[in-house]
Amino acid sequence: MPKISEKGQAMPSSPVRKLVPFAEAAVKKGRTIYQLNIGQPDIKTPEQALQAVKDADMEVLEYSHSAGNQSYRDKLANYYNNLGFDISSDDIIVSTGGSEALLFVMGSICDQGDEVIIPEPFYANYNGFAAASGVTVKPIHTKIEENFSLPSIAEFEKLITDKTKAILICNPGNPTGYLYTENEMQQLAELVKKHDLFLVADEVYREFAYDGRIHHSVLSLKGIEQNAIMVDSVSKRYSMCGARIGCLVSKNKEIMGAAMKFAQARLSPPTFAQIAAEAALDTPQEYFDEVIQEYIERRDLLINGLKEIEGVKVANPGGAFYCVAELPVEDTDAFAQWLLEYFDLNNETVMVAPAAGFYSTPGMGKNQIRIAYVLEKEAIRKSIKILQAGLKEYTA
Amino acid sequence: MPKISEKGQAMPSSPVRKLVPFAEAAVKKGRTIYQLNIGQPDIKTPEQALQAVKDADMEVLEYSHSAGNQSYRDKLANYYNNLGFDISSDDIIVSTGGSEALLFVMGSICDQGDEVIIPEPFYANYNGFAAASGVTVKPIHTKIEENFSLPSIAEFEKLITDKTKAILICNPGNPTGYLYTENEMQQLAELVKKHDLFLVADEVYREFAYDGRIHHSVLSLKGIEQNAIMVDSVSKRYSMCGARIGCLVSKNKEIMGAAMKFAQARLSPPTFAQIAAEAALDTPQEYFDEVIQEYIERRDLLINGLKEIEGVKVANPGGAFYCVAELPVEDTDAFAQWLLEYFDLNNETVMVAPAAGFYSTPGMGKNQIRIAYVLEKEAIRKSIKILQAGLKEYTA
Repeated sequence: MPKISEKGQAMPSSPVRKLVPFAEAAVKKGRTIYQLNIGQPDIKTPEQALQAVKDADMEVLEYSHSAGNQSYRDKLANYYNNLGFDISSDDIIVSTGGSEALLFVMGSICDQGDEVIIPEPFYANYNGFAAASGVTVKPIHTKIEENFSLPSIAEFEKLITDKTKAILICNPGNPTGYLYTENEMQQLAELVKKHDLFLVADEVYREFAYDGRIHHSVLSLKGIEQNAIMVDSVSKRYSMCGARIGCLVSKNKEIMGAAMKFAQARLSPPTFAQIAAEAALDTPQEYFDEVIQEYIERRDLLINGLKEIEGVKVANPGGAFYCVAELPVEDTDAFAQWLLEYFDLNNETVMVAPAAGFYSTPGMGKNQIRIAYVLEKEAIRKSIKILQAGLKEYTA
Repeated sequence: MPKISEKGQAMPSSPVRKLVPFAEAAVKKGRTIYQLNIGQPDIKTPEQALQAVKDADMEVLEYSHSAGNQSYRDKLANYYNNLGFDISSDDIIVSTGGSEALLFVMGSICDQGDEVIIPEPFYANYNGFAAASGVTVKPIHTKIEENFSLPSIAEFEKLITDKTKAILICNPGNPTGYLYTENEMQQLAELVKKHDLFLVADEVYREFAYDGRIHHSVLSLKGIEQNAIMVDSVSKRYSMCGARIGCLVSKNKEIMGAAMKFAQARLSPPTFAQIAAEAALDTPQEYFDEVIQEYIERRDLLINGLKEIEGVKVANPGGAFYCVAELPVEDTDAFAQWLLEYFDLNNETVMVAPAAGFYSTPGMGKNQIRIAYVLEKEAIRKSIKILQAGLKEYTA
């Protein structure tokens, strides 16, 4: 029998993959599970985005341009201009989700064995994109006690080798919710300029900045236009994860030229979803105001609730809709499984993501979990109670 | 300024990329161009596929399962069962186009520097997927005089090394239109069994088999179930290239397990398009009968017309909707550009794909072009006249 590749073996699994059978078994037992483990928001997709697809009149569902429909890229450039970035449609390649944009970026800037520095904990699928691209992730540790803020530049410089090609950040962060300050972004800009590296910023949660905080994009940094690559997606902004529309944005023509060859090889991003994404750009500000207000309330409810549980430590997220919490247990993998397998409160339980999968340093994050506050407040309230009661019983 | 990767530099461009500015300039001059260069059919998408998307009622455009919607995979398994293959929904991973399926396959079976043998000329983007995956393509030459039929097994065996992981075929072939015989498929089966290789078959043109010929799938070969991987797509079957829905199919659990990790890293295939693809499975046989009749008429018109042009040699395609023609010119790159830049017949000209991009052996195919017969018959008639007059003037 022919064998699979080492790459195929080394591809990481989803942090919650092992939990899925236990969740399915719990559901079969008639148990309600509050799914705090995934970033699938319950927020409604803007109506005009869905309507645009219904209204689209076509006889042949054709390929779009490999870089995405010109009309969509024009409107997208306008959206970025309104945010204050000097972007034209030529600086944009529409991708199949932010995922594909990251794959294009890694392929365009890294060869086999090249290194990318990423503050950890980080979005678990970066490990997958790196493994698929033959790239080595060099994690730089950030601490829950420091709210997962940027480590010192000296720490970054310790990790830079002649194989280092980029620093990759997620801003605001999944799973930390941390929003980088202007000063931190400026430090990163100086660092990549000094060492001739790319600064890749995954900004798919850009709109989700709370408490009056301002999001500082990699595209707003002066003097590193040739180093800056931004990855974006409509998934979270318009609660349309299933569209699979993202993009990569850069003023660096060499990068865009290379990425375009990856884009042409796969022909085009999905046509229906581009129609929806283009219409979504007309979403009125009130939609975001409401959504953000809702997330702030959920976050406050969640963070305050978690803080009241004995032994739980939690960072304060300034953006996105995740938080990382440290629990008074040794191994959250085992605890998360136990919650699904053996625990319930009035026949209800919770599913959380063990945080070890968000670290690439072995052993890190074993007593942490990621919680996505993508459920309505009543579900969050109940989830906190379940977690509290579960921890009490588990640690007894 | 940071540099792009060697991989990014090495990514091949589309075979017609250099022609695009000349085509754009010709259009600006008011010239009509018959685009015989791309596989974008003008055939209507089945109405129920488009209607299903209009009818879909959702409030949140959610991620689907990473392997694709269960309801779609169930119906897809049923479609394959009706073709005589023993396939369950667990043997299917839905991908974003056949392109992504090929990337998953290459990642799952090949490490950096591993080799895949592909009969050339082949679909140009295989070069792109191979480059993106760090895979070396080992071309095996097929001849226009032999209708691009399978080379002898001895020729294959000369190319097999300890780095060879798979043989990849496209059946029926793009760009050749060649449909492998049962005997050829059987020979390939014995070969991969003997050398413990995977046999990957790109069967996206399965339905387009002409003149009573029968398509022989890799999935129908006995005794190589663990070697067989099939790549499929709805793009051509239902003329819905813009959906970006494909799949990979295999009974090999190890392969499916590895491919699933690639699938999970990118979260899910597009949701709208899966709805369309699922509905498309109900397309009545009359649709295909009509489409196939239309393609046969176009093919006959094209092939007979080409044969009458002095100095033109053409193979006889038994499937798909392409043909490769040899022209009495030295360099079809230059000729194709000349047709766009300097030639017209009543202010009309044609765009063809120079075939060199479908070969990976340098220098091969330089006097050949690929023609896609995806335009209506009147356009094909005119295109042949333009080609004839163009060749006469060019070679004079």
